[in-house]
Amino acid sequence: MHSLLILNGPNLNLLGLRQPEVYGRTTIADVEAMCRAHAETLGVSLDFAQSNHEGALIDAIHAARGTKDGIILNAGAYTHTSVALMDAISSAEVPTIELHLSNVHAREEFRHVSYIAKVALGVICGFGPRGYTLAMDALVSHLDR
Amino acid sequence: MHSLLILNGPNLNLLGLRQPEVYGRTTIADVEAMCRAHAETLGVSLDFAQSNHEGALIDAIHAARGTKDGIILNAGAYTHTSVALMDAISSAEVPTIELHLSNVHAREEFRHVSYIAKVALGVICGFGPRGYTLAMDALVSHLDR
Amino acid sequence: MHSLLILNGPNLNLLGLRQPEVYGRTTIADVEAMCRAHAETLGVSLDFAQSNHEGALIDAIHAARGTKDGIILNAGAYTHTSVALMDAISSAEVPTIELHLSNVHAREEFRHVSYIAKVALGVICGFGPRGYTLAMDALVSHLDR
Amino acid sequence: MHSLLILNGPNLNLLGLRQPEVYGRTTIADVEAMCRAHAETLGVSLDFAQSNHEGALIDAIHAARGTKDGIILNAGAYTHTSVALMDAISSAEVPTIELHLSNVHAREEFRHVSYIAKVALGVICGFGPRGYTLAMDALVSHLDR
Amino acid sequence: MHSLLILNGPNLNLLGLRQPEVYGRTTIADVEAMCRAHAETLGVSLDFAQSNHEGALIDAIHAARGTKDGIILNAGAYTHTSVALMDAISSAEVPTIELHLSNVHAREEFRHVSYIAKVALGVICGFGPRGYTLAMDALVSHLDR
Amino acid sequence: MHSLLILNGPNLNLLGLRQPEVYGRTTIADVEAMCRAHAETLGVSLDFAQSNHEGALIDAIHAARGTKDGIILNAGAYTHTSVALMDAISSAEVPTIELHLSNVHAREEFRHVSYIAKVALGVICGFGPRGYTLAMDALVSHLDR
Amino acid sequence: MHSLLILNGPNLNLLGLRQPEVYGRTTIADVEAMCRAHAETLGVSLDFAQSNHEGALIDAIHAARGTKDGIILNAGAYTHTSVALMDAISSAEVPTIELHLSNVHAREEFRHVSYIAKVALGVICGFGPRGYTLAMDALVSHLDR
Amino acid sequence: MHSLLILNGPNLNLLGLRQPEVYGRTTIADVEAMCRAHAETLGVSLDFAQSNHEGALIDAIHAARGTKDGIILNAGAYTHTSVALMDAISSAEVPTIELHLSNVHAREEFRHVSYIAKVALGVICGFGPRGYTLAMDALVSHLDR
Amino acid sequence: MHSLLILNGPNLNLLGLRQPEVYGRTTIADVEAMCRAHAETLGVSLDFAQSNHEGALIDAIHAARGTKDGIILNAGAYTHTSVALMDAISSAEVPTIELHLSNVHAREEFRHVSYIAKVALGVICGFGPRGYTLAMDALVSHLDR
Amino acid sequence: MHSLLILNGPNLNLLGLRQPEVYGRTTIADVEAMCRAHAETLGVSLDFAQSNHEGALIDAIHAARGTKDGIILNAGAYTHTSVALMDAISSAEVPTIELHLSNVHAREEFRHVSYIAKVALGVICGFGPRGYTLAMDALVSHLDR
Amino acid sequence: MHSLLILNGPNLNLLGLRQPEVYGRTTIADVEAMCRAHAETLGVSLDFAQSNHEGALIDAIHAARGTKDGIILNAGAYTHTSVALMDAISSAEVPTIELHLSNVHAREEFRHVSYIAKVALGVICGFGPRGYTLAMDALVSHLDR
Amino acid sequence: MHSLLILNGPNLNLLGLRQPEVYGRTTIADVEAMCRAHAETLGVSLDFAQSNHEGALIDAIHAARGTKDGIILNAGAYTHTSVALMDAISSAEVPTIELHLSNVHAREEFRHVSYIAKVALGVICGFGPRGYTLAMDALVSHLDR
Repeated sequence: MHSLLILNGPNLNLLGLRQPEVYGRTTIADVEAMCRAHAETLGVSLDFAQSNHEGALIDAIHAARGTKDGIILNAGAYTHTSVALMDAISSAEVPTIELHLSNVHAREEFRHVSYIAKVALGVICGFGPRGYTLAMDALVSHLDR
Repeated sequence: MHSLLILNGPNLNLLGLRQPEVYGRTTIADVEAMCRAHAETLGVSLDFAQSNHEGALIDAIHAARGTKDGIILNAGAYTHTSVALMDAISSAEVPTIELHLSNVHAREEFRHVSYIAKVALGVICGFGPRGYTLAMDALVSHLDR
Repeated sequence: MHSLLILNGPNLNLLGLRQPEVYGRTTIADVEAMCRAHAETLGVSLDFAQSNHEGALIDAIHAARGTKDGIILNAGAYTHTSVALMDAISSAEVPTIELHLSNVHAREEFRHVSYIAKVALGVICGFGPRGYTLAMDALVSHLDR
Repeated sequence: MHSLLILNGPNLNLLGLRQPEVYGRTTIADVEAMCRAHAETLGVSLDFAQSNHEGALIDAIHAARGTKDGIILNAGAYTHTSVALMDAISSAEVPTIELHLSNVHAREEFRHVSYIAKVALGVICGFGPRGYTLAMDALVSHLDR
Repeated sequence: MHSLLILNGPNLNLLGLRQPEVYGRTTIADVEAMCRAHAETLGVSLDFAQSNHEGALIDAIHAARGTKDGIILNAGAYTHTSVALMDAISSAEVPTIELHLSNVHAREEFRHVSYIAKVALGVICGFGPRGYTLAMDALVSHLDR
Repeated sequence: MHSLLILNGPNLNLLGLRQPEVYGRTTIADVEAMCRAHAETLGVSLDFAQSNHEGALIDAIHAARGTKDGIILNAGAYTHTSVALMDAISSAEVPTIELHLSNVHAREEFRHVSYIAKVALGVICGFGPRGYTLAMDALVSHLDR
Repeated sequence: MHSLLILNGPNLNLLGLRQPEVYGRTTIADVEAMCRAHAETLGVSLDFAQSNHEGALIDAIHAARGTKDGIILNAGAYTHTSVALMDAISSAEVPTIELHLSNVHAREEFRHVSYIAKVALGVICGFGPRGYTLAMDALVSHLDR
Repeated sequence: MHSLLILNGPNLNLLGLRQPEVYGRTTIADVEAMCRAHAETLGVSLDFAQSNHEGALIDAIHAARGTKDGIILNAGAYTHTSVALMDAISSAEVPTIELHLSNVHAREEFRHVSYIAKVALGVICGFGPRGYTLAMDALVSHLDR
Repeated sequence: MHSLLILNGPNLNLLGLRQPEVYGRTTIADVEAMCRAHAETLGVSLDFAQSNHEGALIDAIHAARGTKDGIILNAGAYTHTSVALMDAISSAEVPTIELHLSNVHAREEFRHVSYIAKVALGVICGFGPRGYTLAMDALVSHLDR
Repeated sequence: MHSLLILNGPNLNLLGLRQPEVYGRTTIADVEAMCRAHAETLGVSLDFAQSNHEGALIDAIHAARGTKDGIILNAGAYTHTSVALMDAISSAEVPTIELHLSNVHAREEFRHVSYIAKVALGVICGFGPRGYTLAMDALVSHLDR
Repeated sequence: MHSLLILNGPNLNLLGLRQPEVYGRTTIADVEAMCRAHAETLGVSLDFAQSNHEGALIDAIHAARGTKDGIILNAGAYTHTSVALMDAISSAEVPTIELHLSNVHAREEFRHVSYIAKVALGVICGFGPRGYTLAMDALVSHLDR
Repeated sequence: MHSLLILNGPNLNLLGLRQPEVYGRTTIADVEAMCRAHAETLGVSLDFAQSNHEGALIDAIHAARGTKDGIILNAGAYTHTSVALMDAISSAEVPTIELHLSNVHAREEFRHVSYIAKVALGVICGFGPRGYTLAMDALVSHLDR
């Protein structure tokens, strides 16, 4: 049974609270529930975590080394600025998918840069909460190759 | 029943022919077959096309206007250079997913630029042929919202 | 009698179809009709063409060499990326006016670059379909100098 | 009856004096006369002014606020450096056409930047003195929409 | 017997027609004849083609895969803008020489960039039509190593 | 009664300790005391905090969501590098003023960039500890509009 | 008694006239009145001036040399382009605060550059007309140090 | 007898007033006297002027057209920002020397750019007031060639 | 007796675990032991710490203020992105040596930037674990000057 | 009889010594012998030289002025950094071909810049030692035009 | 008696030989004679040297340390590329004037950069051979201050 | 016994002569003596050389090929500009340490670039003359691995 980690970065704890009439009402708890249900369907175990602390995200990635088969990382804004997270992924040697709720490439120029993507297996962005289960499918497919 | 177009750009006709021991032996015909099978599962109709001609790709996107519910576009190298394809997507007013077989963000700097992404619904890259069926799932999810 | 060519590039075939309540309902056929009427008034002959293919636009410019007295080129998005079109105009040795429906300088940064303008007689942009007849006036004035 | 302002920026007072065998002998007075004649034909009133002072040009644009229906601005070299003129046009809330005698895009790189164009209705350049009457036609067409 | 393809890109069909007193009167037909004669001397078979269409050039390079031993590509202006042609050469896995009639490095800045050169065997430029036979010599030498 | 948060970023805990003969002897405790006194005068409640941890600052901004009426953020060096803090401010939906003790624009080039400012109400910098009370005045004025 | 100069640059004379339903109806006369009232409260003398002419602003700053104790300069668009104003402030040797009504850092990229700030005491922006009295407070605090 | 114009730009009127113990006590009047004395020695007539207004400097350069044999222009900070002054020099068709008191190349990066130099005969900088008489010598030498 | 702090940043806790056949098997514990042994030889006291948290590193540097005589900082990826760490070193006023195991200048472009180096005493990189004892020697030499 | 100079720049003296199993065993002496043999075939005289000193290369190019009919210059790394060599070629007024053994355009970015190419007749690169005889053919062809 | 060194860099030995009908027939020997005559008039001793070798120029500047009172350095193309020459001037601690025959600022972009100017007393360019005697005047004036 | 070469580039011959009260009085001879003493301690043989000539430095590095076990290169200003030295190190195939007396990263921007570092084993900078013996220790450690 594959063991997956879904790791969420800064500000994702507020998902669904801000302008719900615009962004929808899906909270991070809803996303977690959705992912846990999907994990059951896929027959994989799942850890799901969120932190606003870059260091805590690095620690979590390190903890996945040798204990998880794959990581789905929505690093939020740290995607665009953190070489340390990039190096953490390289050090952990666990296949990692970069995920974003929004299509970052259609937003400000500084969100087009991704240090994570340089060491990620692949990238999925722009599909909202649905992106999480797509990433789980992609990760399990990759592990089952 | 949703009607989808999967459109492939330059050099994708040679998929699976070059250094198969490295890149795998999946050909564009294999990809098409896989997508057609998946379309049946999803209960959607599917057009699948490839061209090395930027103008032909634009024509195909235009033809999808009012006739297709969604497009999956693997624009290959035109992704990084074609403003005309970007404008075609805007003009067609059909939800479009940008797809790449490889993780373009882990390749040369000039492949990090995407004009397509500025007007796409979302982006999926790095999952090889499996990305096509993921994109179909994402597109159908989007249309079923 | 001066012989003019009005050449339209990618996506201009969809003019007037997209969000007509915003962009107006003038189609490319309407523009052609308007130009043909104006050509009669000016006493000039007129060819009017559109293609989404960069190569076809180059072919058309080449065909104007020695057969047309002037070209009005709305190269659409190719304006910003095509050195080949620029070279075609140089090779054709026919006075050419660069035309745009919208004021490209008030749009995205990448639309501020024009390879066409480096070899054009002049530029007219921002006046919508009316720009075509202004360009015809400008071209005939130039030829009548 | 539409009321137009044609405003000319730095160095345009010397038009036609420098190397007339190369640049022609049309002076700024000739241009004014030509524009006045064309205004009569169009049935519009016309103010025509020139200044080498950026501040005076701003003052003139301000004075057009609520008193003129449209402005044709040949801001000369200030086009490329003056954010203040750009803001003046925004503040005046009068439709403004950017005009240049020469095709600035075929000249030095620093002449390819235009702050004016970001807030102008449209741009006409490269047609010499004839550009003034083309701009008048374009402006009147716009006002008559 | 080596089988070579000489492929010419946009605007090269007009070679020798424009300002012959400046650029010489050698036409593309003359170049072809010269190359065919040289091919006979070298004892190689030769295909010689020209197209203004980027897609057609890609198709031609693809067609050379497994059928030609070497390609001489004068991609004209596409040299500086086409990632798709670069990828076509990589996909075709046929040794390719980049050729230019003029010394592109002594021309405008944007002609100093070459996507072709990144995957070419070598580059020859600045020697006019004579460059074609030099490139044939270089290619045959390379194949005979 | 308005409820304000003054949040201080990295290294501000050492305020007044380093080269006091140059930078003055005002410590962070002094600043807090000064702000508390001013809060009383203004009739507002005040929270005052400092952290060297980017994540802790994000947590604090999140905590202000729905509980504070305004934030004064002296993000120190994170101002120039943290997209995550910028997103935190957007997510918190609390009016935020960017504050700096020194005039950052008169210092090194990399201190001229501010991600915070893109989503802040306004910026005050260069007035030393006095800037805090100015920012409180500005914030209360804004809330009282 | 401190003697202050508040100096306003290009387009600020139109304050409150443009789209008042959006930007408010506070005119430059209102701002002046507000500042004069505040000056009385603070017990300082005040000169208040506006010009659209860069040279006139320089002259006014020079005139403040040795006659004023502090300057509040809202240089408008000249902030971003005028090295001459920067040098004028250096030459005048009078403490100067840079002021903007809007948060310039949240607007176009070219408004993020400030030559004034390199030699200013500090910067206040984004607080609308209220910024003027904040700047007066800041300036008087500085002079009273 | 050669007729020269020495034209001084923004802030040069304050020469010698600011920090005289550092920059020396030579005022603009002293410089003028020194130049007038040197003009007598050289047997040339001299006009000497200063303005803080870019437009006034342009007007003065225009007035030199056909009336002066040479110009020495210390454009101060306008050197680095004024395309209009550059065009004025081109229009005036009078040989012009660019002069600076300080070595601008050893100062801030933005002072290394000179629009004036692109059309000047030559440049002299870094020699303080002595540079004026050196420039007079250089100009007279040039005129006497 | 000098008191030294060796501080290690993100991902260094995994040293020696990843691909040991390539990078060697020296762990962070081994490095610490080696440094402690060397400290004894040198007759200095040593603190040795590691954290993946930028804020914790800043806290540690602050704690060294007035308690340590020198710092050896291997800031890992934070070297290239953290202005806050740079400011922490300035604030701590303790001589600091920047250390890297690998030669960062021979790696990706973004690893050539160092904020740390701007305020460090010196830099040592490329010598693997041996660099730590070299840095200790360098630091003690500096303190013994 | 044409008189040619083949001039080799820095590090070419070590040709064939470094990793011969990778780069081949052709030494600079072998290249010279090959060129001398080819010179005899072509009926031209040949000088062949190498230096690691930029100044010595300039001296050699100067010595070719008026004594040689053509130069083949493999300037090695000086190609990318030496404006002085570029000026030497301009000063010598002898047709010069730029030559490289490797395809510099497929190597590091800083090797894509060539000052030599701006003044060279043409460029040949990527063909190893064979490039020398190709360049001789090209040069003689040029001289025989 | 002041002792001066005039030092000339690469390619200046060919002065007056290339296209004399365009550049004039003044040779480096003529320049030396002119300078020697002027030295006598000024009552200074003069060394005059030229080398194409960057190292030799550095050696010569070093030799001037403590033996010469001033240097006039026409570093030719090394001006734009040599940090080593810049450092040599700093090390020699002899006042140095940068000289160029042509107005380098009106030539190619890469000639606008000067490392020499960063440490020079001042710059004189654009006055041909006459610039040498102007520089001598400037240097002697400086030494006589 | 390891055989080392310490090679010093431009201007290092003047070490200790310039402003000794600031930079110290250690001359290059002192450094050599210190290194020779340290070599004895380490039991290695040592060559120590200095040249201001880039070509001579390349020659010296070539001479070390096959005769020296390691090089310590203080290339001075050539570090930042010489691709030829970089290639020389690659060609010599001798482990090389880049050394600087000062912390170049804390100096001007153009000193942050190092071509040497791209091919060096490691870098030591900022420790003054002491850096030489540290580099010797590092080199011997590396050779003894």
